Amino acid sequence: MRKVTIVYASDYGNTEKMAQSVADGVDSVESVSSHLVQAEEVTADDLTSSDGVIIGSPVHMGSVDWRVKKFIDTVCSGLWMQNKLNGKVAGVFVSGGGFGSAGGGCEIAMLSILNNIAELGMLIVPLPKNSPSYKSGGLHWGPYGRSADENMENVGVSDEALAVAKVHGANIARATLAVSGNIIFLE
Amino acid sequence: MRKVTIVYASDYGNTEKMAQSVADGVDSVESVSSHLVQAEEVTADDLTSSDGVIIGSPVHMGSVDWRVKKFIDTVCSGLWMQNKLNGKVAGVFVSGGGFGSAGGGCEIAMLSILNNIAELGMLIVPLPKNSPSYKSGGLHWGPYGRSADENMENVGVSDEALAVAKVHGANIARATLAVSGNIIFLE
Amino acid sequence: MRKVTIVYASDYGNTEKMAQSVADGVDSVESVSSHLVQAEEVTADDLTSSDGVIIGSPVHMGSVDWRVKKFIDTVCSGLWMQNKLNGKVAGVFVSGGGFGSAGGGCEIAMLSILNNIAELGMLIVPLPKNSPSYKSGGLHWGPYGRSADENMENVGVSDEALAVAKVHGANIARATLAVSGNIIFLE
Amino acid sequence: MRKVTIVYASDYGNTEKMAQSVADGVDSVESVSSHLVQAEEVTADDLTSSDGVIIGSPVHMGSVDWRVKKFIDTVCSGLWMQNKLNGKVAGVFVSGGGFGSAGGGCEIAMLSILNNIAELGMLIVPLPKNSPSYKSGGLHWGPYGRSADENMENVGVSDEALAVAKVHGANIARATLAVSGNIIFLE
Repeated sequence: MRKVTIVYASDYGNTEKMAQSVADGVDSVESVSSHLVQAEEVTADDLTSSDGVIIGSPVHMGSVDWRVKKFIDTVCSGLWMQNKLNGKVAGVFVSGGGFGSAGGGCEIAMLSILNNIAELGMLIVPLPKNSPSYKSGGLHWGPYGRSADENMENVGVSDEALAVAKVHGANIARATLAVSGNIIFLE
Repeated sequence: MRKVTIVYASDYGNTEKMAQSVADGVDSVESVSSHLVQAEEVTADDLTSSDGVIIGSPVHMGSVDWRVKKFIDTVCSGLWMQNKLNGKVAGVFVSGGGFGSAGGGCEIAMLSILNNIAELGMLIVPLPKNSPSYKSGGLHWGPYGRSADENMENVGVSDEALAVAKVHGANIARATLAVSGNIIFLE
Repeated sequence: MRKVTIVYASDYGNTEKMAQSVADGVDSVESVSSHLVQAEEVTADDLTSSDGVIIGSPVHMGSVDWRVKKFIDTVCSGLWMQNKLNGKVAGVFVSGGGFGSAGGGCEIAMLSILNNIAELGMLIVPLPKNSPSYKSGGLHWGPYGRSADENMENVGVSDEALAVAKVHGANIARATLAVSGNIIFLE
Repeated sequence: MRKVTIVYASDYGNTEKMAQSVADGVDSVESVSSHLVQAEEVTADDLTSSDGVIIGSPVHMGSVDWRVKKFIDTVCSGLWMQNKLNGKVAGVFVSGGGFGSAGGGCEIAMLSILNNIAELGMLIVPLPKNSPSYKSGGLHWGPYGRSADENMENVGVSDEALAVAKVHGANIARATLAVSGNIIFLE
């Protein structure tokens, strides 16, 4: 049995809904199970005992939530020093108001997390454009849930965005099955 | 009279329409005039004789058009070597299909150009969220025109996106008036 | 008298030393004074009463320190909602171990902050390559202080890096003098 | 036998030397062979017949060489339309003058390429910090060869940078062996 841990922060429940859909996607793949944990509660053991890691964040001011960054700085940096996560599989998702039609900074938010993931030596799984529901919630880096409409009214992430989050979870679960047990990086 | 040059490439005319609107914005500000030129035709003199520079590109594969990059590599790099554009004012805009609700890579496309602009020592003018029509075509880095709808059908950039492009041109013209004539950087 | 506020976080004192040099640079320009404040203590008034803002951060895991991001999320986001910082002048600097010869992620750390700055509607001042001491501590986005040598031994940021930090402070002070009092953005 | 294609552009031979070392790394792994081709000559068949793709570029003005972008825009974009490269394995490397100690824009150059790679649906292999020779030529996104010293004198990429390029090639070859034959993405 392979394990994929989903780490997330959430303000009003939108990122949490997406995290739950990602977890459902992971669990839909045979021989893989999900572990869902909030950024402020995750431990080093949660990560080292996992074969895959997926990190989700609200988009605040065009980048990642500070609680997610605190998790990276305090929990992950020690694991980086010791090279403990090398060769695991990883992915990312975000949720935001997304004022306008240009994603409202979700891309840099995703890249900030992927940057941390690359430092940790984990393989990055993107989201192909022919994924189901991509057009309603996908970016090539991962799923993007919009919690607000173009007038910044809070409407909540759509079912289609949740569907593509589930697809992403399943993709990463399959990638984890393929990669785990193989030695990719030598010292 | 201050001069702002708009450099752009265009495939199907969408980025060109935006470039024209940006130029209209520049010309709407007293004492500033626009100069519109395609990326494949711009010369070093076009840039050194300008007080401000605005660069526009189609988004291809989540980043800048190769013709715009060729202009940077061949025309701008010599000016960088000689520190010729230091202290001028600059901005960016893009146009793309933008498959989905997350901007389809427009942010990295904008950042690639802004990266070049920063190397050239030019001050960067962003696009505030309370700009008119922002919600229909704005990102904090600059205007973003979507040429396609969510099914990737080509519908052309909207009038609202053209309106925010004009706002951006006027903003940069005003910034150019404020900055030009002042020495910001010493050697 | 114009005021430039420098907001920073620091772990072992390296970013703090850079912040002090940036402040010295600001104060070296006539008619501009610096205000130095830690990220965990800065208030909204500190920012709204300033004509320029400079943000500095340690590089952690290839991106910005979580305390700096907390400041952005909690202090700046309300100002963004109300468009309170539009048209001010801003810049960035970072300090990090910089394992290897490629900056160890300082570029994305800088961009994450600049992303927030652009959302806040502030003009971005880069660092030209012909700035004094650039080769020992400069990147086009701003000064970069390396606290460690190539073996990750802590040697502290160099005098040259502190010198280029001072240059950046003076540049931003001059840009603030040029821009302040002009209306760049209309609503 | 798995095949990994290395696509690159080179001005003065530095990126080419790195490409050759990456290819040597690929060939050092049993059951994988390298195919080395210049960006201006690569065909769609070169890519669709490969299990892995590695893209290398000189850093120009803080981003990717225009010939590499032309390859992306003209050869890859059609493959993206048809989802032809989904699920393959990919990586990146760059070479540049790297004026100063902060990488001279190599990070955004790498990210621009990785952005294209993500759009193409390929899994991204980073470079862990405990890789041999990392400290002399590594960044978490991939190897970085510096062709110039801190005074911008051309000294050529170092043997250590070439060594880490070889490590990256071998890593990607091993990742290709693990991933190829598995279906990661469903439509």
